[in-house]
Amino acid sequence: MTAPDNAESLLYHVDGELVPAEEATVSVDDRGFRYGDAAFETVRAYGGSIFEWDAHADRLARTCETLGIAHGFDREDLRARIDETLAANELADAYVRLSITRGVQPGTVTPQRPVDPTVVIWVKPLPRGGVDGQPVWAEPAVVRTVETRRIPDAALPSAAKTHNYANGILARLELRGTDADEALMLDGRGHVTEGATSNVFLVDDGELVTPSTDGPVLPGITRRVVLELAAELEIPAATRSVELQDVATADEVFLTNSTWELRPVCRFDGEAVGQNRGAGDERSALDDVAGSWPAGWSDTVEEPSRWPLTARLQRAFDERVDARYY
Amino acid sequence: MTAPDNAESLLYHVDGELVPAEEATVSVDDRGFRYGDAAFETVRAYGGSIFEWDAHADRLARTCETLGIAHGFDREDLRARIDETLAANELADAYVRLSITRGVQPGTVTPQRPVDPTVVIWVKPLPRGGVDGQPVWAEPAVVRTVETRRIPDAALPSAAKTHNYANGILARLELRGTDADEALMLDGRGHVTEGATSNVFLVDDGELVTPSTDGPVLPGITRRVVLELAAELEIPAATRSVELQDVATADEVFLTNSTWELRPVCRFDGEAVGQNRGAGDERSALDDVAGSWPAGWSDTVEEPSRWPLTARLQRAFDERVDARYY
Repeated sequence: MTAPDNAESLLYHVDGELVPAEEATVSVDDRGFRYGDAAFETVRAYGGSIFEWDAHADRLARTCETLGIAHGFDREDLRARIDETLAANELADAYVRLSITRGVQPGTVTPQRPVDPTVVIWVKPLPRGGVDGQPVWAEPAVVRTVETRRIPDAALPSAAKTHNYANGILARLELRGTDADEALMLDGRGHVTEGATSNVFLVDDGELVTPSTDGPVLPGITRRVVLELAAELEIPAATRSVELQDVATADEVFLTNSTWELRPVCRFDGEAVGQNRGAGDERSALDDVAGSWPAGWSDTVEEPSRWPLTARLQRAFDERVDARYY
Repeated sequence: MTAPDNAESLLYHVDGELVPAEEATVSVDDRGFRYGDAAFETVRAYGGSIFEWDAHADRLARTCETLGIAHGFDREDLRARIDETLAANELADAYVRLSITRGVQPGTVTPQRPVDPTVVIWVKPLPRGGVDGQPVWAEPAVVRTVETRRIPDAALPSAAKTHNYANGILARLELRGTDADEALMLDGRGHVTEGATSNVFLVDDGELVTPSTDGPVLPGITRRVVLELAAELEIPAATRSVELQDVATADEVFLTNSTWELRPVCRFDGEAVGQNRGAGDERSALDDVAGSWPAGWSDTVEEPSRWPLTARLQRAFDERVDARYY
């Protein structure tokens, strides 16, 4: 399968038609453009199949319900459009983004009930990580805490994935001039929430911890898969309130999203992750996973054994993808 | 001057070119569409001239600075594009919206420094209100308090006008099935902020009050003009923290934005505005403005004299527009 290597040769799917990426447009009167009035999902395709489609379709449906966009498409129709787009681009392993906007409407901010939605599907080649693959990110993440706070659920529910990304953009802008490539965001009370485009996990004394969705935290699909895998591997896991100090003193920290899958964090707020952990019994956990770090990482990750639990979960994730799609 | 009466015959200004509205598009890869990553201003043209252009250009510059969009256009260039669009459409009294997006960029949410911005200008005919005109809104506003809270400044500065309108859209959605057409939004502590697309003013015992921009309140251009007019008219005015009870018991309530100018509120949370005021000395204030209600309102507003201070300020606003542009 030959993947196009630049956007110019890709086909997108806009309003029911496959169109060359450079001709793919929406009306300036589309509310998706005027107001960010649109729902979206970022999805991975592995071996030509959409990973966790049901979970993405469920969340997309909830976002559209939150926005009151009664678009009328069923999930099989949307999936068929993605499949058609992947096939037309001869893509097996790919990044996919699907958006549904409220379309063009008369008037101003108040949404009208009848909708003529615009469906846009973007694709681009994205090699999978995996047991014999390369991670999709070039390097472990460097993370910094930013001043920009996550939007509270009372203002905009964090479970709704809309085209309103100014909050995450402001967070990423704060990283300019630093060594960091992901921003850790706090809520209004100072609790840890998530990255600008990722969920955050930490490992503390063998326990896996991630902020609860009681706060403004996206219920990430990869986040949920990681919690499932932890249960299968009998790794103790908790979703709870997380403080900055918990991240600073964690043994391991990693990020998840559909594109990155699991991505270890090597530095947090200027310090090496794991540096502040106690000299406890991590050595045995480390020995457990000797040799289990995915092939290919050695080029980019100096010390994969610094993140033994992350490596176990990454391997389990890869094996799940492998078993289902290859 | 003949104004086109539907969008199909209008010309918009997109990326430097005048194009028919129905052909005016942006790339689906434009960050303005993907992320709402764009700054905008809604402006009024009166008699072919842009009202308060310097104030709008200042705010646009601040929004672009907040978003880190170094677009490189000077304000005279942007103004020339608006003028060109108005002239091409033979419009003198008009609604104008100008947006600057970060344009198409590779990669994901993190903005790149070099930008190839997209500038879009929408216009449509909008008759002015004014001394001899009709108000641009058909009726006084009916307002209800909604559950959706305004986004705190720490998450997204309220002074930045971006394409991220999901917060206001959720507020307006809460009005479905009610008699209201504007939503009053509170901040996280329950203080009154503003409407979904308007600033709010109230009159209490002859004093004009509007929420301070210390909270998440847009520094509206019309809001500032009204405060200037109040000073000229020696009407006592205060910007301060406002509680729901203050609105419920106000003698008058009105909304401002560039499109509506000043728009009185006739009902708030199901009660007639002014109903709960004490039987004090309003009568004399009311007598002051007898006969001063703009012509034409009598068809739609049963009792303009219910809002004497609003009417004085509306007349002063119309006179300012008149003196400058006609």
